[in-house]
Amino acid sequence: MNNKSLVYLQSGGPTAVINSSLYGAIIEAKKGGFDRIYGSLHGIEGLINDDLCDLEMENNRDIELLKQTPGSILGSSRYKIPEDLKDPVYQKIIDTLKFHEIGYVLVNGGNDSMDTCAKLSKVAKTADYPLQIIGVPKTVDNDLVITDHSVGYPSAAKYVINTIHGIMLDGNSYSVGKVYIIECMGRDVGWITAASDLLSGECRPDIIILPETPFDLEAFLAKVERIHKQKNHVFVVVSEGIKFQQDEKVEVDSFGHAKLGGVATKLADIVRERTGLSVRDIMLGLPQRGGVAYMSKVDQLEAIGSGAFAVKALVSGESGKMVAIRRLSDYPYKSEFFLTDVMKIANSVKPIPASMLHSDRKMDTSFAAYLRPLIQGEPDLVYEDGILACSRFRYVKAY
Amino acid sequence: MNNKSLVYLQSGGPTAVINSSLYGAIIEAKKGGFDRIYGSLHGIEGLINDDLCDLEMENNRDIELLKQTPGSILGSSRYKIPEDLKDPVYQKIIDTLKFHEIGYVLVNGGNDSMDTCAKLSKVAKTADYPLQIIGVPKTVDNDLVITDHSVGYPSAAKYVINTIHGIMLDGNSYSVGKVYIIECMGRDVGWITAASDLLSGECRPDIIILPETPFDLEAFLAKVERIHKQKNHVFVVVSEGIKFQQDEKVEVDSFGHAKLGGVATKLADIVRERTGLSVRDIMLGLPQRGGVAYMSKVDQLEAIGSGAFAVKALVSGESGKMVAIRRLSDYPYKSEFFLTDVMKIANSVKPIPASMLHSDRKMDTSFAAYLRPLIQGEPDLVYEDGILACSRFRYVKAY
Repeated sequence: MNNKSLVYLQSGGPTAVINSSLYGAIIEAKKGGFDRIYGSLHGIEGLINDDLCDLEMENNRDIELLKQTPGSILGSSRYKIPEDLKDPVYQKIIDTLKFHEIGYVLVNGGNDSMDTCAKLSKVAKTADYPLQIIGVPKTVDNDLVITDHSVGYPSAAKYVINTIHGIMLDGNSYSVGKVYIIECMGRDVGWITAASDLLSGECRPDIIILPETPFDLEAFLAKVERIHKQKNHVFVVVSEGIKFQQDEKVEVDSFGHAKLGGVATKLADIVRERTGLSVRDIMLGLPQRGGVAYMSKVDQLEAIGSGAFAVKALVSGESGKMVAIRRLSDYPYKSEFFLTDVMKIANSVKPIPASMLHSDRKMDTSFAAYLRPLIQGEPDLVYEDGILACSRFRYVKAY
Repeated sequence: MNNKSLVYLQSGGPTAVINSSLYGAIIEAKKGGFDRIYGSLHGIEGLINDDLCDLEMENNRDIELLKQTPGSILGSSRYKIPEDLKDPVYQKIIDTLKFHEIGYVLVNGGNDSMDTCAKLSKVAKTADYPLQIIGVPKTVDNDLVITDHSVGYPSAAKYVINTIHGIMLDGNSYSVGKVYIIECMGRDVGWITAASDLLSGECRPDIIILPETPFDLEAFLAKVERIHKQKNHVFVVVSEGIKFQQDEKVEVDSFGHAKLGGVATKLADIVRERTGLSVRDIMLGLPQRGGVAYMSKVDQLEAIGSGAFAVKALVSGESGKMVAIRRLSDYPYKSEFFLTDVMKIANSVKPIPASMLHSDRKMDTSFAAYLRPLIQGEPDLVYEDGILACSRFRYVKAY
């Protein structure tokens, strides 16, 4: 037994480039140094249940198309690994690793996944099982600390910018005024929502509401009415995770069914009721994290690069680290990868810094300077009969 | 006074290619035969209020980018022209036409717009004002009769197909089952919703609900539970315009606020309540008609061609006709334009024919054979700094 095999995990919600990171890792790992290259099905669940697949795909087309295939092709997981390291699932994981002679683990995910990396490292050490683990960063939310940005965020931002652009051009076609309330992803941080501020002229949103700042409903309503009088249409972009200053009870009493929708629907109801204006609520929803049509080339290349860099880190003996990105210059955009301790990532969240916020519910110009270089470039996507071509890779269980 | 000027109107909801039709008309009209080329702002409202702009754009870039600019660049209108042809608005329209020496009108729209064409023709005749009017077909709904399909529908269909593809790949990433209910546009006809059936394999929707067939809630719920047991995830695609078989009262009593969302939200509530399953409702919303990222090249070329064909029809003395499309072959796809009487279009709606429906709530293969040729090809879209480049044409009021 030499433990020279590698396993790759995808975890958490998908991004437009999640399978591009996998692509980078496969291409690099195939260059040598590993006995076999496995994928774990549904993240950590695959290691617990011995549900692995072979990643040495024969079909070159299925490998190439990973770069534009939405969704987590290895399957994702909502399973939360136990805090207690003596929980029997950890022994099951060690058993799976041993059985397949796996000495290398790559975990593609956000801060929860980096916490998983840290736990696995500890458990392996206790069990005296030699294991190297490297994290590959991924999250549309852009909430990872230390790294300049998270892989996957630029494409989500670009999706939001271009989709809202289309909605605003549509809305501005009409002479009868309306309030549009558009909801973006981002439970704790507003990075995705804020991206809409890169639009300019009559397509720049009028109001941007972020979780980073307290939300004052009365001030918001006054502003909506003022803008409506000034320019007829009012475009509001709001993070799903904003907190209402108002009493939770008030919110519930007036609008019932919390299950009935997100914050855009609730806000739309309030604006309708309080101002009498015509309101349309729009949830951008799941396509934000799987909308490959607006994939950023910069993001795609960094995803591929980070997967490859993680493999190289394993080869050079590193463990317990996550691949992070350091920005070297804006124009032309240049960046480099480096390694950081997973523990530094695991328990922190990065909100938009105050310096990038503007007092009047728009973004400071430093935010656009930060984001604009990241959304550059459009990959040539391959279509078959008008439908995006996807990797037809299917799980073949490894024994 | 020679009445050799032309005016172009955009009407109804935008499509991904609405400004491509305008592009085709401008390019053709610039070849000669007209004194001036005007755009009417906000459809018929521009003719009523003498709000016209000059369309002989100087900037070649602004003309070229019309082919990828979402929204109605001339402004759309929700104004319904009066039934009574003696209404004073008609005199205002004649006054505007006279003042600008306009003898040619192009109306880009759906069946309501063709009704407007017919009314204007009658009024001009009564007023003894020489006027030629040609309709340029446009509607994402694909509900126009006589023409093989409506310009704009193929791109809406392609948007729906590719967006639902992404949502299903995302959903299928998870091991915990869920019911997804995805709502598409189409109040009276299900053409847009049905498009999702072109997806194949595990990304083919499980249930498609169309306005063309009566909706049986109990049968639907039983089917959702059966599919959930079989394959965990259930993907339902539903037209916004489906009719519930159930008593209207039942629907209202159980789910209150009709304003709170479309049919997907209502259905999701019912499924959640009756089956206890985890349900996510998704409205594809406005991007269906403005999502140029999934524009069909076939659609774009036909939009340009129909605009140009309409101008040629005016030059050859035609009036009271709409440009329609005749399909000549599927592979390779070939079509030609012809003229049809606007009155034949104005008062009819084309549902999906029974031959294209399948008993088990999926589509017959003849539907895919019809639609597939229309969604072929992807135009090269131009981006500036990661944001879709749009025509910066601004209204300059013509005096």
